[in-house]
Amino acid sequence: MKKVHNFSAGPAILPAEVLKEASQAVIEFNNSGMSLLEMSHRGKDFINVMEEARALVKELMGLGNDYQVLFLGGGASMQFAMVPSNLLIAGKSAAYVNTGVWASKAIKEAKLVGDVNVIASSEDKKFSYIPKGYTIPADSSYLHITSNNTIYGTQMHSFPDSPIPVVCDMSSDIFSRRVDFSKFGLIYAGAQKNMGAAGATMVIVKESLLGKTGRKMFSMLDYQVHIKGESMFNTPPVFPIYISLLTMKWLKKNGGLTWIEKVNNEKAELFFNELDRNSLFTGTCAKEDRSKMNPTFLLTKPELEESFNKMWKEAGIDGIKGHRDVGGYRASMYNALTLDSVKTLVDVMKEFEKKYADAKVTA
Amino acid sequence: MKKVHNFSAGPAILPAEVLKEASQAVIEFNNSGMSLLEMSHRGKDFINVMEEARALVKELMGLGNDYQVLFLGGGASMQFAMVPSNLLIAGKSAAYVNTGVWASKAIKEAKLVGDVNVIASSEDKKFSYIPKGYTIPADSSYLHITSNNTIYGTQMHSFPDSPIPVVCDMSSDIFSRRVDFSKFGLIYAGAQKNMGAAGATMVIVKESLLGKTGRKMFSMLDYQVHIKGESMFNTPPVFPIYISLLTMKWLKKNGGLTWIEKVNNEKAELFFNELDRNSLFTGTCAKEDRSKMNPTFLLTKPELEESFNKMWKEAGIDGIKGHRDVGGYRASMYNALTLDSVKTLVDVMKEFEKKYADAKVTA
Repeated sequence: MKKVHNFSAGPAILPAEVLKEASQAVIEFNNSGMSLLEMSHRGKDFINVMEEARALVKELMGLGNDYQVLFLGGGASMQFAMVPSNLLIAGKSAAYVNTGVWASKAIKEAKLVGDVNVIASSEDKKFSYIPKGYTIPADSSYLHITSNNTIYGTQMHSFPDSPIPVVCDMSSDIFSRRVDFSKFGLIYAGAQKNMGAAGATMVIVKESLLGKTGRKMFSMLDYQVHIKGESMFNTPPVFPIYISLLTMKWLKKNGGLTWIEKVNNEKAELFFNELDRNSLFTGTCAKEDRSKMNPTFLLTKPELEESFNKMWKEAGIDGIKGHRDVGGYRASMYNALTLDSVKTLVDVMKEFEKKYADAKVTA
Repeated sequence: MKKVHNFSAGPAILPAEVLKEASQAVIEFNNSGMSLLEMSHRGKDFINVMEEARALVKELMGLGNDYQVLFLGGGASMQFAMVPSNLLIAGKSAAYVNTGVWASKAIKEAKLVGDVNVIASSEDKKFSYIPKGYTIPADSSYLHITSNNTIYGTQMHSFPDSPIPVVCDMSSDIFSRRVDFSKFGLIYAGAQKNMGAAGATMVIVKESLLGKTGRKMFSMLDYQVHIKGESMFNTPPVFPIYISLLTMKWLKKNGGLTWIEKVNNEKAELFFNELDRNSLFTGTCAKEDRSKMNPTFLLTKPELEESFNKMWKEAGIDGIKGHRDVGGYRASMYNALTLDSVKTLVDVMKEFEKKYADAKVTA
């Protein structure tokens, strides 16, 4: 199997040992004579998986019993609808911070439920920074923020002190660093970046916030229904949840969030030092808001694009083409990406500068 | 690996060759150097999976371009909400046939959208038969039926001629037999019985039925949004969809619905012949409505339960404990269950009768 440095923005790289164990479970799980895919989700084998996964989320985040953890299908996009359905109280509004495409989608869905107040936005500069210094209206139902923006390469490096419950879409930087998670009322994350494969979405919610809207809603959209069903109101996405469990176990075994934060800081420092030093590259967003998960960057000489593409492809690098809204490049450095892969990219950038910085090359 | 005869009601048995190929894809897919779980869903490898899966559904069912196929997350339970959201026209009602727990849940969700008319029900006899001879109101938006009822072991062996679009929950007998699928306006099915693993739900819809309600709804609940996104409006459940593709390819390779119908008839005949002959067992529902997917049965001498349980367990049989609502046993015989497994169960039943029919045994 050839070596690939997988910088994909998501679904994204997973630890090799997670893949190995998952591959085995597809053939046979727990010496049962059956694949994990063939087992009843009501059998003890999968109930154990679900319970361990739910408990491990709280353990890794240091959260107590006032929080409930759910693993649902439908993707984070479904949470754009579920959050206002469950939390937006009639007669009140919901406050949203708009930091890009995903926040905009969350706002769009919330408007179907009630009054939405976009209290801050970085749309004026193509979402290239994180808005700061805004006032959070104390009479809103909740504040919704997006901690990391994959497309624009921005990330919140601190979180606002809020007089109202904070809801955070952490899809693209969940489990990447230490955070005081108890500051949040609800956190959701599609699993397919830092915590597994596509098909499962994690929701952590402070239970005391629920049941206050009096709104009738579909059972599948109702957090309280899922909590009552112990995250198995209906058949859950069994295999994606198992991948999340394995990924969390890998994280815990290696030292949890303290460890991964250190690793991610090393990777980011190595990459950003080179980005800032190298004359042929430039970042796309405000330095203080740069994402450690999804650095985005451009060539200073766009005519060299083909030459650069050739070089990184030859080095076994994959998935660094930028999103069409921003162009250029995006080197996603999720938890499972090794420092070695970042070194490989940095070496290519250095080599590229050496070869082309002074040359009058056209593509 | 020990041999298990897996009669689970779902998630359920899958073909061994599907599991083998899926297991490999978890390590590396298409010689890419990457796991299928690590790949962008927007890359050509997965787009090919999605397109092949969507096309194969129509090919196996003999449906034309007036139908759209979607693979969504969220489970069939989400369809209980999506169907009325997309099809129930204001001022009209929706007609439902109540054949058990799943139909009842579909009815409950539809009532949140509009007027629901339960035009037939078998609740009077604990859902042990399929209602017939009911009149379908021509002015309703649609008729909703459930083709197979896992809990009660009943199945529709013919479908009503309807003046209005028929919506069918085929979660537990999809792809098990030839049906004139063009009689349906919408068919949905959770994948985890006959077409894969938990986490993906297939929806087939006649596109001309959509866009008529004027109802505002969440993007994730809107079939037209998913159609426009070619079943990738958001990140789809990648791996469960791949399992569905492999399962459909296995079906096609072996002869499609003509072949599997023959196999399923053989299995059902073998089992029901024994059930009707054996003095120690009795079925739980009307003979003409018995499900070929989920035969349900009871001991005529309930005091022999422990002895029977011991015998089938020793024969390597798994998953035949009945649902708590019906009690007794349920031997689910989905597509991937072999005739050999049914023979094993029938042999145990024969042996059990031989040993206990005349004995005055108490457990």
